[in-house]
Amino acid sequence: MNLHIAVLSGDGIGPEVTEQSIKILTAIAEKFQHTFTFENALVGAIAIDETENPLPQKTLDLCLEADAVLFGAIGDPKYDNNPEAKVRPEQGLLALRKSLGLFANIRPVKAYDTLLDKSPLKKDIIKNTDIAIYRELTGGIYFGEKTLSDDGTSASDLCSYSKEEIERVAHLAFKAAQTRRKKLTLVDKANVLETSRLWRKVVTAMASQYPDVTLDFLFVDNAAMQMVLNPSQFDVILTENMFGDIISDEASVIGGSIGLLASASVGEKYALFEPIHGSYPQATGKGIANPIASILSAAMLLDHFGLAEEAETVREAVERAIDLEICTPDLNANGGYSTQNVGTFIEEFI
Amino acid sequence: MNLHIAVLSGDGIGPEVTEQSIKILTAIAEKFQHTFTFENALVGAIAIDETENPLPQKTLDLCLEADAVLFGAIGDPKYDNNPEAKVRPEQGLLALRKSLGLFANIRPVKAYDTLLDKSPLKKDIIKNTDIAIYRELTGGIYFGEKTLSDDGTSASDLCSYSKEEIERVAHLAFKAAQTRRKKLTLVDKANVLETSRLWRKVVTAMASQYPDVTLDFLFVDNAAMQMVLNPSQFDVILTENMFGDIISDEASVIGGSIGLLASASVGEKYALFEPIHGSYPQATGKGIANPIASILSAAMLLDHFGLAEEAETVREAVERAIDLEICTPDLNANGGYSTQNVGTFIEEFI
Ligand SMILES: CC(C)[C@H](C(=O)O)[C@@H](O)C(=O)O
Ligand SMILES: CC(C)[C@H](C(=O)O)[C@@H](O)C(=O)O
Repeated sequence: MNLHIAVLSGDGIGPEVTEQSIKILTAIAEKFQHTFTFENALVGAIAIDETENPLPQKTLDLCLEADAVLFGAIGDPKYDNNPEAKVRPEQGLLALRKSLGLFANIRPVKAYDTLLDKSPLKKDIIKNTDIAIYRELTGGIYFGEKTLSDDGTSASDLCSYSKEEIERVAHLAFKAAQTRRKKLTLVDKANVLETSRLWRKVVTAMASQYPDVTLDFLFVDNAAMQMVLNPSQFDVILTENMFGDIISDEASVIGGSIGLLASASVGEKYALFEPIHGSYPQATGKGIANPIASILSAAMLLDHFGLAEEAETVREAVERAIDLEICTPDLNANGGYSTQNVGTFIEEFI
Repeated sequence: MNLHIAVLSGDGIGPEVTEQSIKILTAIAEKFQHTFTFENALVGAIAIDETENPLPQKTLDLCLEADAVLFGAIGDPKYDNNPEAKVRPEQGLLALRKSLGLFANIRPVKAYDTLLDKSPLKKDIIKNTDIAIYRELTGGIYFGEKTLSDDGTSASDLCSYSKEEIERVAHLAFKAAQTRRKKLTLVDKANVLETSRLWRKVVTAMASQYPDVTLDFLFVDNAAMQMVLNPSQFDVILTENMFGDIISDEASVIGGSIGLLASASVGEKYALFEPIHGSYPQATGKGIANPIASILSAAMLLDHFGLAEEAETVREAVERAIDLEICTPDLNANGGYSTQNVGTFIEEFI
């Protein structure tokens, strides 16, 4: 298979971890006789620094013609505490999601048995946790109309959803549940929000098309509790953009290893793969960033193109690295290996 | 002191736990020679059943002329999964908050040393956790304009905030920080939302009036992670209505004892005190509901009227009950005591 992959490694540790994924994908291409080509482009703070635009047209054009996007991380503290900043790195990511129509963000959260001790939660609470979170990614309050009054003393953000926006991501979530433990939990705030009641109505109406899937509902405040009290109760979680942002980040820490978590953002035509961790500026250039989340995102890319054996090979290599504690310091108390060394171990195993 | 207290015990376990608080307040009145009078009124599902209105005018009138409101819990499953329901118990609570101008919800979250084992989190993670959450309660997306298209296929909710709405709750949070560990964390999503940027701007501008308080900021997704990874880093958290709902519920479970957590909702003129747990219909009438959250809410009521010694007496009695394991089954593995017995023990200790 020929794949042309746009590489948007972004800010902070983004480039370091993405470099390792490219190594892995290259090793897979060699082993399985595919041709993967990689092309770099700017996004985020580095793009603002060089072009004043967090998503330059050149970058977007590349993504639109590539088969897939491999994304690093974006964000720079110099923009975070400046409410007056007119351009922000995050706008690049949001514009990219919107332009590529990436309406579903998929995040698997799994507690690895060998890493149970790393979790802030007790072992018996997280044991057997295996969740797939489906977050709507191009609608809701993130993309609604924003207003700021002329005198700067009042502001608003509009959250809106349509039946179509809900259905397309919900179909993916129902289908995922069918291949898993057949349970789908819709997280909303239907006791207060009109949009949440629409979600509940639309998703309920779809359930008859998936008779083998059990659908249940949780208010988002309760979901935030249940994720800590009893995460293994969940199979597939479906939710809107903002709730998905919060709940999936909360879920990401219960496994004790945010450096292991991958994500895929998919739409009708395009797909983007990124680790769920951020740009982690404090770690930049130190060789301590865990490349596994990025490498597992590359495995999701392989899956997306039906390369199941290839994806499995990557996952096996990663699991071997974890079992042998060939891990960066976040997972290895004895100092650990560098970003580069972990990547090379996985590459050689393949 | 004479206090006329409106008692809105509501649904599910609300009445059972509120009954114990009244016992405690009565014991305090006797011991410290105050006159507390109590008057009951309907709210929530029970009010809908009897009057078709979750907040009958009679109830509101009582609250408006009372000195304080002691609230139980509301909610009934028969309304939860019915997106078409025109009246819902929650509307009663929301209308009450709005009508009484209860713009600040205050939730202390504390890890009791003797109960550290009950937490889903590891002991060393929650040890020393002591947080006060200030949630804005009458603005934001909960109270913004809602729309549903005529054909029922699209919906919206508007989130808006004004400088004044932010300032009044922020002043309370800054002042609380001054009496505590002098740290205030604003939780927002300023990298995406216009309203969050307004929060950041307004709160930042206020900081110079509180030079002894250190102000910092967290994006809500990161806050959801930090609450699990390292809750003891927080002192006072300030946030908008919806984020406060999610983050405070998440925080409520880390101590392992949601049945212990109280809250106060205050405004310019009125104040309401309620346990943070819900109506817990499955437990209704079984005598297993933990009355301590309600009793500690009554202690917050005493504090509110400057009755510090009285409040302290209640807290001491509660701590004694916990130390002696005179607790309901949620906290006592050996079967435990009934709601009534726990209340009576605390009453007699006073
Ligand atoms: C960077 C930010 C806009 C983004 C989001 O909130 O969507 C991030 O937190 C994420 O979850 O991918
Ligand atoms: C019942 C509901 C409307 C309410 C809220 O979300 O505000 C509850 O969850 C709470 O936190 O007090």
